[in-house]
This record gives sequence, C-alpha cells and structure tokens, in this order.
Amino acid sequence: MPIPKTDLSPPFNITRASHIRLTARDLPRAREFYTEVIGLLVTDETADIAYLRGVEETCHHSLVLKATKEAPVCEAIGFRVFQGEDLDAAKSYFDRKGIDARWTEKDFQRRTLELRDNTGMPIELCASMPTQPRLHDRPHLHRGAGALRYDHVQCLMPDVAAAGRFYTDLGFRISDYFVDRPEDEEPLGLFLYRKDNPHDIVFLTRPGPTLHHFAYIVSDANCLLRALDTAGGIGFSRNFERGPGRHGQGHAFYVYFRDPDGHRVEILPPPIQLIDLDDGPVKWHAGNRFTWDLPPSRKWLHESTPFQGATISAPAHDPKLFSLEEFLAAQEKP
Amino acid sequence: MPIPKTDLSPPFNITRASHIRLTARDLPRAREFYTEVIGLLVTDETADIAYLRGVEETCHHSLVLKATKEAPVCEAIGFRVFQGEDLDAAKSYFDRKGIDARWTEKDFQRRTLELRDNTGMPIELCASMPTQPRLHDRPHLHRGAGALRYDHVQCLMPDVAAAGRFYTDLGFRISDYFVDRPEDEEPLGLFLYRKDNPHDIVFLTRPGPTLHHFAYIVSDANCLLRALDTAGGIGFSRNFERGPGRHGQGHAFYVYFRDPDGHRVEILPPPIQLIDLDDGPVKWHAGNRFTWDLPPSRKWLHESTPFQGATISAPAHDPKLFSLEEFLAAQEKP
Amino acid sequence: MPIPKTDLSPPFNITRASHIRLTARDLPRAREFYTEVIGLLVTDETADIAYLRGVEETCHHSLVLKATKEAPVCEAIGFRVFQGEDLDAAKSYFDRKGIDARWTEKDFQRRTLELRDNTGMPIELCASMPTQPRLHDRPHLHRGAGALRYDHVQCLMPDVAAAGRFYTDLGFRISDYFVDRPEDEEPLGLFLYRKDNPHDIVFLTRPGPTLHHFAYIVSDANCLLRALDTAGGIGFSRNFERGPGRHGQGHAFYVYFRDPDGHRVEILPPPIQLIDLDDGPVKWHAGNRFTWDLPPSRKWLHESTPFQGATISAPAHDPKLFSLEEFLAAQEKP
Amino acid sequence: MPIPKTDLSPPFNITRASHIRLTARDLPRAREFYTEVIGLLVTDETADIAYLRGVEETCHHSLVLKATKEAPVCEAIGFRVFQGEDLDAAKSYFDRKGIDARWTEKDFQRRTLELRDNTGMPIELCASMPTQPRLHDRPHLHRGAGALRYDHVQCLMPDVAAAGRFYTDLGFRISDYFVDRPEDEEPLGLFLYRKDNPHDIVFLTRPGPTLHHFAYIVSDANCLLRALDTAGGIGFSRNFERGPGRHGQGHAFYVYFRDPDGHRVEILPPPIQLIDLDDGPVKWHAGNRFTWDLPPSRKWLHESTPFQGATISAPAHDPKLFSLEEFLAAQEKP
Repeated sequence: MPIPKTDLSPPFNITRASHIRLTARDLPRAREFYTEVIGLLVTDETADIAYLRGVEETCHHSLVLKATKEAPVCEAIGFRVFQGEDLDAAKSYFDRKGIDARWTEKDFQRRTLELRDNTGMPIELCASMPTQPRLHDRPHLHRGAGALRYDHVQCLMPDVAAAGRFYTDLGFRISDYFVDRPEDEEPLGLFLYRKDNPHDIVFLTRPGPTLHHFAYIVSDANCLLRALDTAGGIGFSRNFERGPGRHGQGHAFYVYFRDPDGHRVEILPPPIQLIDLDDGPVKWHAGNRFTWDLPPSRKWLHESTPFQGATISAPAHDPKLFSLEEFLAAQEKP
Repeated sequence: MPIPKTDLSPPFNITRASHIRLTARDLPRAREFYTEVIGLLVTDETADIAYLRGVEETCHHSLVLKATKEAPVCEAIGFRVFQGEDLDAAKSYFDRKGIDARWTEKDFQRRTLELRDNTGMPIELCASMPTQPRLHDRPHLHRGAGALRYDHVQCLMPDVAAAGRFYTDLGFRISDYFVDRPEDEEPLGLFLYRKDNPHDIVFLTRPGPTLHHFAYIVSDANCLLRALDTAGGIGFSRNFERGPGRHGQGHAFYVYFRDPDGHRVEILPPPIQLIDLDDGPVKWHAGNRFTWDLPPSRKWLHESTPFQGATISAPAHDPKLFSLEEFLAAQEKP
Repeated sequence: MPIPKTDLSPPFNITRASHIRLTARDLPRAREFYTEVIGLLVTDETADIAYLRGVEETCHHSLVLKATKEAPVCEAIGFRVFQGEDLDAAKSYFDRKGIDARWTEKDFQRRTLELRDNTGMPIELCASMPTQPRLHDRPHLHRGAGALRYDHVQCLMPDVAAAGRFYTDLGFRISDYFVDRPEDEEPLGLFLYRKDNPHDIVFLTRPGPTLHHFAYIVSDANCLLRALDTAGGIGFSRNFERGPGRHGQGHAFYVYFRDPDGHRVEILPPPIQLIDLDDGPVKWHAGNRFTWDLPPSRKWLHESTPFQGATISAPAHDPKLFSLEEFLAAQEKP
Repeated sequence: MPIPKTDLSPPFNITRASHIRLTARDLPRAREFYTEVIGLLVTDETADIAYLRGVEETCHHSLVLKATKEAPVCEAIGFRVFQGEDLDAAKSYFDRKGIDARWTEKDFQRRTLELRDNTGMPIELCASMPTQPRLHDRPHLHRGAGALRYDHVQCLMPDVAAAGRFYTDLGFRISDYFVDRPEDEEPLGLFLYRKDNPHDIVFLTRPGPTLHHFAYIVSDANCLLRALDTAGGIGFSRNFERGPGRHGQGHAFYVYFRDPDGHRVEILPPPIQLIDLDDGPVKWHAGNRFTWDLPPSRKWLHESTPFQGATISAPAHDPKLFSLEEFLAAQEKP
C-alpha cells in the first residue's frame, strides 16, 4: 500500500504531539534520570506520580511517570487540539467512525478524550493545561541537556501505511517516508506532522504497535554532550544507547538514552521547519539516505515499550534492517 | 487602544512571513554581503535582480534584491498562504473590505496578490514557489552564518494597535506586547505570529510605516560569531550594528547587521515554540523585561528603511526610549 | 623605548600566572558572583577569606577573596615557579638585584616569596599547592560559565616597556605589542607569556600600576552566553560590562564583568598556542588590528583596581584611545 | 616495569610534537580529505608531496604527505626543539648514548636531526620552519573541522614503559597511565607531554612500534560535527571510524577518521592544561576510567600504520581489551 493522502480540511484541529504517560518501577530513579540527565522540570508530584515538562514549556506536563509494580508500559500518547470545540468535533468524528472515544477528566489537563487508534495504540486528546513560566533562558535552573520541549513519538507498527491513514485523515501531513528500493511505493517508515517540523508521530515497520521512543528538543548540539557527560558523572552511563549521530534523512543530530525502566528517549536540537504545501513527502531509500553515522545496534532496532492493553502483531514481511553488529562483522571480512 | 483580539477562524489561511523585496544601489556588493556574511544561497539572478534563500529553505526565494539608482527601499513584504484557494478567499475578503488587492504574476512565485495594509505597507501573498533541496546539513556549502530560513519582519508604526488589528483579523495571534508602565494596556510594541514561533511580524511605536529589520534563523549561537568573524575577515566589519545579545522578552540571542544599502538584518538561533491557545499574549514592561544586554544605540532605535510609496506619519505620543548613549552617560555620573 | 628582549636562559623558571588576591567589602556577595556567574569552585573558606579555583584546576586556589572594610584592592598577583629550587634561585636573583624579596608562609601554598616588581606592583611566587581532582568533565557540578582555569592578568602601567623589562629578564616572551602608528617602536600595549599561550601578564599604557582585569578560560563561546544568561537570571545583569566580542589581535572571544566590588574579570575560550621561537612578537596598530567589535566604553578604558600600597603615576604622554562614546557620536555626524 | 621517572633537567629542550610524515597512494584524494574534512591548509605542494598545516599554525607544516606506490607508511614523527643550540645538544647526547643520529636538510625545516628511538620508531628534530600568518579567526577560509593545530601522536608498542623511558630521559613528563588492576604498576598505556597539555606522544601496549593515530585540535565540539557532516556531504562517510565520544581519562571529546590510505587521525577540542609539578601521573584502571561512551571496535583497537623500516614485535603478554563487538554481544545475553 502506498503512503496515504492527507485530508487538508480535517474534521478537527490537532496541533501537536503534546505528552506521554509511562509507568516506572522505581519512580524516584526515573525522576532523577529525567530531571538530571534530560533536564526536565517537575511541575507536580506525589509518591505515585510525577508530572514533568521541558524548560521552555508553558504547559503543565509533557511527561507523566506513574509508579508501577508491573512490567513498565506506555499508558497513552497525548495530542493537543487547538480549542475546546475541537474536542467536541473529535468526539463526533470518532462516534461517526464507530471508534470508541470516551470523555475522562485527567488531572491538570481538564476534559480529555480517550481512544485507541486503528492499530490499538492508546491515545488521548486535550485542549488545555495550567501554564507555567518559560525558563529556557535561565541556565542556572537547567540540569543535564536542559531539554526545551516535547517533540514527537516514534512507534513500531506492522503496517505503517495502514497506521498512517488514521492520522492523515486527521490532517497529519507526511514529511518523509522510507522504502526499500527506489522504485518501491510501500513505506517502511513514515514521518507525520501537524506542527511546523517533520515529526509529531513516526512509524517504523516492525511487530507492533509498540513505543520505540519519544523525543525532546534541546537548544543545540552542545546539550547532547552535556547530557552525556552528566550521565557519565552521576551513574547513568549505561543508559546511553546511541549517538551522537545525524539522522540520514537530514533532520537533526540525535542521542538516544534508555531510561531506568528501558523506555527510550531521544534528544535532538531544533529540527527543520515544514509548513509549505510545496513541501510534499520526500521518499528515502538506501541510495539517498546515506549519512556518516554508524548503523544502529540490534537493541535499538528491535527493543521497545509495550502499549498498555495493545495486542502486538507482526508485519506481513520482515523489513530488511542493517545493524551495527552486521556492519562491524562486514568490516572485518578480508 | 489595547491590543486587538485574534479572529481564530480567519477568512483565509496565511501560514507565515515568507519573503521580502529590497532595492540595492550596488547589487553585487549586497549579494556578497548576503551570501558571504549571512550565508544565503542564490537560486536565480540576472544583472538586475537576485533571488536568495536560506540553506534550509525549499522555497525559491526569501530575499529578492533588485538593483536601483534611487534611494534604497523595501518594495514589499511577502506572506505565504496555505493553498491556492486561500488566495481566492483573500481576494474576496479584501474586496469585501474595500481594500485594493490586485492579481499579479511574479517571477518564481506564480499568482500573487498585491495590496497595502491599513498602514500603507506594501504586502504580497502567494501560495507556491518552485522548490529546491534543503542544504542545512551540508556545511561544506555554507558561508558565514549559514542562515537557515527567513523568519520575520519588524516594522516601525505610529499606532501599533491599529496596525495590529489588520493582522489579528487575518488570524495572527499576539505572543508578546510591550507597554510603558505595568498598568498600561496600550502596546508600544506588538509581536504577531502565524507559524509556531513568536514572530512573523512585529511592530514598534515610532514614525512609520517603515521597515526596521527582517530576520533569518541560524543553527545556534556559534553561527552568530561565525558571521561576525566573517564580516571582520572580508571587509564588512562596519556593517555589524548590535549584539550578540539576548532579547529581553526571552526569545533568543541576536546579532544585527546593516547591509551595504543600510537595510537592517537580524540573525538569531531557533526561537521558542508557540502553539497552544493557553499561550496568551505576555505583557512586558521595564519591570519584567530586564535582561543582561546593553540598550540599543540611537541608530538602532531610529534608523529604518522606507517602504516604497508609503507615507510616514508620527505617533500621537513619542515613546520613551532608553539608548546606549544615555546608558553610557548615566554610568559616568558621580 | 622599544620592546625589551627576552632572556632565553632566565635565572629561574616561572611557569605561569597562577593566582590573584583581591579584597571584597561584601564577601558573600562576591563569592556568589564568582561561583554562580563565573563558575568557580570554593576549595576552602572562613568568614573572612574564600579560596576559589576553576573546574579544571588541580591547584588549591587561583582566586583569593579577603573581606575588607576599606576600599577594595588587589593585594597581590601570583606566579607559579616550576620547582622549590626555583624559589631559592629567585631569592638569590632578587637579592643580587637589590630587590626586597621576603619569605612568607601563605595558607595552602607553603613557602612563598613576596616582592614588588620595578613598578611597585605586589607579586608573590610559590612552587606548590595542595591538589584537587579536575572536574571539567562533570557538567552537573558546573555553574554559570563553568570557568576552567585562571589564565592571565592585565595591568595599567605608565611605561609598559619599562614594566615589561622586569618580566623579560625573567624569561617572559612577548607575543604581541600595540603601537600608535605602524612605524612606531614604542609599545602602548605589551603581551607577555611563559605558558603556551599569548598572555600571562599584559600591560596597557595608562596611569598605573593598577589592575585592569584578570581572566579565566572557559570551554567555548557558549559558556560566555551561559554566564550572561545566568547573570541576568540571578541579579548580576549590571555586572556585565563588555562583549561578547573578538579581540582585535586575533586571540579569542571575550566577555568582561565587573564583580560586586568593581574588580574586572574576563572570561574567554581557549586561546591560541604559542611555543615556537619562530613566533616572534607581532606588532599591532590601527592598520592591522581592525576587528568587527565595537570600541570599549570609557569605563572599560579607564576604571581599574588599585594595588595595595602602590603609588600611581601618569604616563609621559597620554595614549590616544577611541571609546564607544566617541564611536557612537561619530556615527551620528551628517 | 613501573612507569619511568622524568629527568627534570633534560639534556636539551624538546618543546612539542610538531609534525608527521605519511605516504599516500592517491595524493590528490588524501589532500582532499585533509583539506576538506579535517580543514588543513596547503602551504606548499608539488605533484609528489604536499605540506599542510592547521589554520592556527604559524609553522610551515605539521603534516607532510608524500606520494607512494608502495603500501602506505609513516616515514617519521617530528618534534620541535626550542633553539638551534638544542639540536647540537641533542646530537651530542645521542652520540654519547651510542644512538645513530644524523644531520639532514629537510625542505622547509632547515637543519634536521634524524634518528630512531629505542623502539626503532623514526623521529626527526628541528628548531625552525618558515612562518605563516595565523588564520584561526578567519572562518571564511576554513573547511570541515577547521583544524587549529597538530597536537600529538599515539603509537602501539610492545613495552610502553621501556618505550617511555627514552622520552622521560628527554624531559617528557607523564600525565596519565593505564593499568589492568588498580594495584598494578606496569603501564598498559602511557601519556607523555612536553607542552602544556596531557599528550605529545602516547603509547598503548600492542604489537609495535606502529602509528595508531595522530591528532589535531579543533575549536570546540561543534567542529567535530561539522567535520562529520562534511565527510557525509562530499563522499568521505566511510572514513569516519569512531565517536563523537569523551575520553575516559577526562581529557576531551574526540572523533576518529581513517584517511583514504587508512592512516588514523583524531580531532579533539582544546584539552586540559598541565604545567604544575604537583600534577603527577594519574593512574587509570577499569574502576576510575568509566565513561559514557561505547568501547572501540576491534578495528580501532588493532589496526595501525607501519613505520618505515621498523620491525614489529609482540608484547610479552597480550593486553586485555574490551571491544564494541564484545560489548554488543554481552548486551544481548539473557
């Protein structure tokens, strides 16, 4: 199936990927990782839950960590709609589509609409949160990477085109997609966006739906190194997983960490701006994606976080993936 | 008059400030300044006109320089609308409002709608330009600041609230405004935006309308220094006017240059993101705008570029401005 | 008098400018400035004295702040000699020269030789201090600029060539000197060094001897901005005096602060390396020193810290200086 | 054998590692790599030889590339002595020691003393080269990493303590050494320096003598990324070998490339300063060297450049090394 087409007059206005809900077996340890290495600020917390945000964010939270005694999961990924009336339009839309969308009251985000997308991934929509002052220009209050703001989520999916259609119907545009051979049209990776950069939600072809990673923007490449040195200095060295590298499709530098519960978080400097309708989807393949950085390890390629209550299924065909392990082995052949 | 209210369902969809048209008495010299110091790329040019863009931009041009033998002016500031149909909706809207908006064909931007806003400032709207590949991740092709993309324009206006109403009626939101005393509501400065950052167009209270500056985003603060060192190295030292400094309202670092014709151009790293409706206008005054940098010189405060064919009028009351000259004199008092 | 010649086989081995002793009327406030804005670490302190060092330094202190109720002064500038035996050789040398050099025991630096140089400036020599672990790669322990290490001191002197001779006799080499006209040989500014960069001690022609500033190296240009934002964030905005700029003789970027007692401190990224004998003194004048940054204010040009017990005398001829105030006034002439 | 002791009154004054001579099978391709990716400048060249230097260097060359049709080698590593008379003192010293040191005239470095050290490694000493203006503050002339200056050389050696003694007898001090277990005294790695930073020459225990890498200093961490993006942009992606990472012993960030002939070159930001006699050798082992970056690949650990005419012998005991391949395999164990 080729990439889906965007509905340019969507039924309601989702403005951005806005937050994520994760569970943690050792909440204080997870909190330390996110505040000291990634540099998030705690807006509110109890013994069982912590609400965190980036130093630039006015919203109450972009990361919610909930204590658990079970295996860690992602409870939901959150999107912001523009106005309260967009929530009502969303409810009507999902009702019309026969999708079970329920009103709920979530702490610090008022009226929230909960549903599962067509792949079973739990999502929630809200229109407002209590606001905080921005602190991006107060470096004396920053720790680690001093992460500015939540940016996107990347999920593993058995059929990325099918998964993508749910979002293009809601007005998400496609910035980029990956294929195997230049002549292919079936996407193996799909980047979708609502705000002015290439990614609010990204899908890669693997067994899924699962959460591959979520990402925060940092000020510049120096913040990547500051996060790494901090991780090394306070006992989170082995939470570093990949980078610093440059994404092959020309978006940005990156570093990937695994948090103490194994959830993967990316930090990256401000990416490119995408607004114009002229900026149609760019097709990437081995022939034009070549970059300088080394391939990802098998761990990065295959490990991910389950979504609460979602059933995982396998792709029709296994994607061809090239791992760091294979790269290293190939180098040593005579 | 207090700040105007934004129409959240505007008659058509302007997406961003997109380009500017300036005249230059010595086009090769101006071209050298913009390519070598600011780091723009030339997409097309003849002996009489040059079309330039930032290294990240896919659009054909964001700066048009036209040779002149007259005093240099700004011919027009340009905005992009989302789709071709937005141009038609714009034409209808302006017709209804009794505003003289005319269709024209501009090279490399197809159908263009030309008009003057309520202050007499010449603006043009277009929906599309030929696209180019992004080159932001190819530093071997960058010069000077390696400017990424056009960001905003700042204009001097006798009545910034009145000028702002034209734009809030078109869906521009207000990120920030300046007042004299905390209790004041009449804005002396007004920041308006459509894309996801605080500024597409900014107004300051002075005789106007005139063009104070236009601005390009650069990758990070190092690019500011690289532009300055380049200016020093190739004979544009005295084109440096102000900075590096940090904007008092917490937006970004900045450096200001004057191009060889005296047009002022700012370069700044990626600014904060503004999307949520919760992010209402922030009111700034002497009590909360305090920052570390020195006040601007009288030259920065008062010099600007005329708009072609626009009549300049004075504000009802002169704004209180504090110049670098006054700051330095005050320091020496016993 | 032309610049003096370096004795390449000096009587003893001074290795570097190593520390400075200042007095402060409000020691806690001064301590806050140096730890939070400049980023020094406190090695030891009592109510009356604080010993600080840069985050990279293994030595016990490079800045000593002593509480005073008098007008603030510089008590001494310190140099390190290579070995204990160099101290003995120094004592013999000064005795032979008829210079009153006295042994003293200073806390945390053992045997110290105190004297006044030929201009009356109080200096002290030591060979050793207790060592601390380096913390330059532990950003979670850094504040403000995270200053790495003490670098140099700059003094105002009525006759810089005469002052310089004292140091060239001790093996200091001259990296750079300023003259008025290209054909002049009499230096108006003199940069002297022992370690592998252009400056351990610098002299400018003005009434003196007084302390113009001392300087710490920071990791890179971002640290300059981090110091400034921190100063703005915690109430030290008006301690910022000059910069960020680039030194005209091509050494480094800079920012100058005035500490709460008015002592001037510079921070700068790592400067160039100077080792080879081929690297003879470079003569700078208006014709080859031109850079992009604006001239210094009259305050920067003329204000300085007295040395304890030193008598100030005026230069034979006032140097021609070009101030920011004059620059701004000249810009406005028609 | 424990680490050797430094002669603090050496027979002559070596000031720094200054240059290296390599052969290249495709000289134009090697030249392109070093000028465009590393950012060196060409001072002189013919069809058969190219003389390159860093943008900050005043010396004529720090890298000499000579065309060859044979397998690529390192012809010599070069050191600078302070004065011409140090060359004579060196000749006398080596004559006394029974080491065959010969006078030769090398282009652009005048009188040069050639010899092999106690391990058979070819070295050359010179006191002077023609000088060039520094261009470090002229970014419009920089390419790629804009490498500032040659810094050090790292060699593989069967007995690093024995190899080190040759250099400590010449006044080289030891900044750091590696051991296997904390209680060990026998070094597996040895960092020796003359100039004010931790490394002019470094030895690691492996079959040798061979050249592991040589290194250039760059301005800051951004230059590492600029070099990598440039490599990606102009066809040198696969010349990238390792990094960006942080050296475990706290020296600096790094990136390693392999040039088109397989010679390994490191680029790193300015390292720490080492001058004081208090800064004795630091012993590193697995317990205190822990850092965030991933282990090196087997290729980085074992591949190196032969020295012309040097016979390679194996260490008495193979050092225990932990490779990226082993790290990745260990991660996947259940």
